[in-house]
Amino acid sequence: MKKIFYQLALAALSLGSFAQNFKVPKTTEVWEPLPKIVTPATTPGGAPSDATILFDGSNMNGWQHTKDKSASKWLLKDGAMIAKKGTGELMTKQEFGSFQLHVEFNMPLDSKKVGYPDGGNSGVFLHGKYEIQIFDSYNNEVPIYANGMAGSVYKQVIPIANAMLKPGEWNSYDIFFTAPKFRYNGSVETPAYVTVLMNGVMVLNHFEIQGTIQYIGIPSYEYYSGKGPIALQEHGSEVAFRNIWIRDL
Amino acid sequence: MKKIFYQLALAALSLGSFAQNFKVPKTTEVWEPLPKIVTPATTPGGAPSDATILFDGSNMNGWQHTKDKSASKWLLKDGAMIAKKGTGELMTKQEFGSFQLHVEFNMPLDSKKVGYPDGGNSGVFLHGKYEIQIFDSYNNEVPIYANGMAGSVYKQVIPIANAMLKPGEWNSYDIFFTAPKFRYNGSVETPAYVTVLMNGVMVLNHFEIQGTIQYIGIPSYEYYSGKGPIALQEHGSEVAFRNIWIRDL
Amino acid sequence: MKKIFYQLALAALSLGSFAQNFKVPKTTEVWEPLPKIVTPATTPGGAPSDATILFDGSNMNGWQHTKDKSASKWLLKDGAMIAKKGTGELMTKQEFGSFQLHVEFNMPLDSKKVGYPDGGNSGVFLHGKYEIQIFDSYNNEVPIYANGMAGSVYKQVIPIANAMLKPGEWNSYDIFFTAPKFRYNGSVETPAYVTVLMNGVMVLNHFEIQGTIQYIGIPSYEYYSGKGPIALQEHGSEVAFRNIWIRDL
Amino acid sequence: MKKIFYQLALAALSLGSFAQNFKVPKTTEVWEPLPKIVTPATTPGGAPSDATILFDGSNMNGWQHTKDKSASKWLLKDGAMIAKKGTGELMTKQEFGSFQLHVEFNMPLDSKKVGYPDGGNSGVFLHGKYEIQIFDSYNNEVPIYANGMAGSVYKQVIPIANAMLKPGEWNSYDIFFTAPKFRYNGSVETPAYVTVLMNGVMVLNHFEIQGTIQYIGIPSYEYYSGKGPIALQEHGSEVAFRNIWIRDL
Repeated sequence: MKKIFYQLALAALSLGSFAQNFKVPKTTEVWEPLPKIVTPATTPGGAPSDATILFDGSNMNGWQHTKDKSASKWLLKDGAMIAKKGTGELMTKQEFGSFQLHVEFNMPLDSKKVGYPDGGNSGVFLHGKYEIQIFDSYNNEVPIYANGMAGSVYKQVIPIANAMLKPGEWNSYDIFFTAPKFRYNGSVETPAYVTVLMNGVMVLNHFEIQGTIQYIGIPSYEYYSGKGPIALQEHGSEVAFRNIWIRDL
Repeated sequence: MKKIFYQLALAALSLGSFAQNFKVPKTTEVWEPLPKIVTPATTPGGAPSDATILFDGSNMNGWQHTKDKSASKWLLKDGAMIAKKGTGELMTKQEFGSFQLHVEFNMPLDSKKVGYPDGGNSGVFLHGKYEIQIFDSYNNEVPIYANGMAGSVYKQVIPIANAMLKPGEWNSYDIFFTAPKFRYNGSVETPAYVTVLMNGVMVLNHFEIQGTIQYIGIPSYEYYSGKGPIALQEHGSEVAFRNIWIRDL
Repeated sequence: MKKIFYQLALAALSLGSFAQNFKVPKTTEVWEPLPKIVTPATTPGGAPSDATILFDGSNMNGWQHTKDKSASKWLLKDGAMIAKKGTGELMTKQEFGSFQLHVEFNMPLDSKKVGYPDGGNSGVFLHGKYEIQIFDSYNNEVPIYANGMAGSVYKQVIPIANAMLKPGEWNSYDIFFTAPKFRYNGSVETPAYVTVLMNGVMVLNHFEIQGTIQYIGIPSYEYYSGKGPIALQEHGSEVAFRNIWIRDL
Repeated sequence: MKKIFYQLALAALSLGSFAQNFKVPKTTEVWEPLPKIVTPATTPGGAPSDATILFDGSNMNGWQHTKDKSASKWLLKDGAMIAKKGTGELMTKQEFGSFQLHVEFNMPLDSKKVGYPDGGNSGVFLHGKYEIQIFDSYNNEVPIYANGMAGSVYKQVIPIANAMLKPGEWNSYDIFFTAPKFRYNGSVETPAYVTVLMNGVMVLNHFEIQGTIQYIGIPSYEYYSGKGPIALQEHGSEVAFRNIWIRDL
């Protein structure tokens, strides 16, 4: 509701009367709405006051398996949730529109040895559709196509940089996602956009997502509500996750 | 040079032959260029391996006064550089195009008492032209127009959120800036864009900058090289800065 | 080839050296490439010198049926080609990318009496995919949904105006079409756009086409070469066509 | 008012409920608003029923000199208004926002002999600011920079084609102009766009206007109401004009 008010207020700003006097500073001042107050985290990578905690290390209650909505069969160990082989993708029970997402992940030690495709392979699926790839891209050592490396939107774009750490070390993704909009006839009005930091380094800058990702074939958009869950892939590789939180944008 | 090669490679990707077989995964694989390897910082807010350090607490050698290019007259104290009243704006000796910038700042304890305009007032000027406002906006307490609060592009937009800490506490800005481009006749081809995190919280999301900021009057673009320094404002308020680094994008 | 040279030349214009002196008029002069010389028609609605004549009233040799590529079974009468009921859609043998298309059409006298859907119903399909609707919309009398009236991109947009003439009178469409572009992975890089004049009156202004039109369901793009034929619909209504020409853009 | 209703209706279309059933044709039908009925002209280049006639050959009452708003000193002869040397620019008394404009013009017989700058030189100034160049560009014979030829937005773009007729013959421009919009702080929200047909041939296709044109220096936008007059340049050349009409878009 607040958001709608905010948008209306901003819209109103562009209607301006044209008897404006731009020779005084007051003309270009806008006093409302005040921005929402958010208390930032006191620890690095921590959740701000308005975040929804998706995983804090204590339980996997917010997650279910994508294929049958069953309770998580992933491993809960040392404050991390681990993609147990053969259990399948997990997704949040809640859905989100546009958001800021923080997630930390750690590659298995055998990632490089196993190699593509199952070595150190996972992914964060935004709305369950758009994959920010997780892969053992440390030092560009494990061969894979560049638009499938960590930090890519899978098979859509090569990341700007590769700031991955070694297996065994915790990486972070900070993901800023703008949801797509659809028209009355179901066609795409505006596509989704994503900005990604990998360990604090920009790897995607307002990238226009080209549609639901595809391993084989052409990415394209299919009509939906514009909201969806966050999903984490299980791809035969025991990738660990921790400290996952999200904020509505 | 590398960047140009990268752009040509990406451009080539869109020319594709139309005898493509989208029924095999190989068709949508792109193997080059590999992303640049960057080693992330080992400390929160630290500089990645490819960053230029603009201020590390030891000296102000990279900075000069905007008005006369003289050596910095700001205070160097406890690893911070402090905007000494009456000394004027400082700017980097180096120029930058598109970049990722990290800067930390701390408001004077009297910011609220002094209030607008000189209480806790400063700003980060991208290319010396586009101000990301610094102001004591803690808890929305000090009255100022909303499009002049911390995290705004000054007099252009209200920030999405206010995640400022109290005077005496260190805040961070992570700023992702896309430089404007100009045409052969000097007109704006593409405007500048900026994304800003305040203490890790998104406050601007790919905002289209409207031109050089103005206290009085209308922001507009004026032709230049598309490169410029980072400047820090001195506005009668002893705002402290530390840990400033920048990476080319 | 010429086109590529032209685009390169324009691209070069945006790279300009920055030692430019904007105080002399010469700086903003561009001397090449000279525009292509085209001799306009000497009769209203006639074909310019660089046009491909698709139908001049003498034969239907440039056309074939869409379903089986057979020779036209439409009627050739009084210099017009008429959509004979039950024969099906006709399309050009040639394919085009971006273009300017002129086509004239005349509604059967029973259009209003028959009404929706078969009364005075046809359409111009750009690339065989994107329909500029032809319908007896004279005076808004025959009931149909507004985004299916003459001048609409069928089921995508309501035309800005309705300048249709009565059945028995010749209407013209002047259609300016920008072809879509696709990426290496088959996704849409830029959508198609269309501008349409109906009897000289603007009815669509640089409308962003939302994909292949659909009677039932959601319009979307499917990867193709970005070139295609012009097709004319046979929809149980003996709509007449004459004076059809096209120019590459 | 109608226009605002129309825009609201279109806006509403994008809000759609998400329980939509795209398996029935009804879902993608939109029944309102009906397009405005316009009766097209019965003569080539004639004014549609909703046009404002700016010049019909009988008088110059709708025009005044730009410099002092005095009555027209141009010549009225044989149904044409002619740019009498030394009298200066004429502009309409009325102002317009976005529009479709038709104007016909004829170059003096000595255009080529006089050559640049005063031979056959004039221009149509949209909102009095953005010049669609008029010049004797017949057959590319008179030397001038290409971005200053007939059909250019002067010193901004080379026209796509040159379809000019010889001096002594009547040319037409059909101009489709989208007015710029400005924000509350006076900055440009959306630039102006223009599409131009010269003698029925497309010479500009939704070109993004770069600002008020400049003979010397850089085109840029300056805040105004987004409405303005149509002006015709007197540039030492007795260019003739006839049949000028305009429709609001």
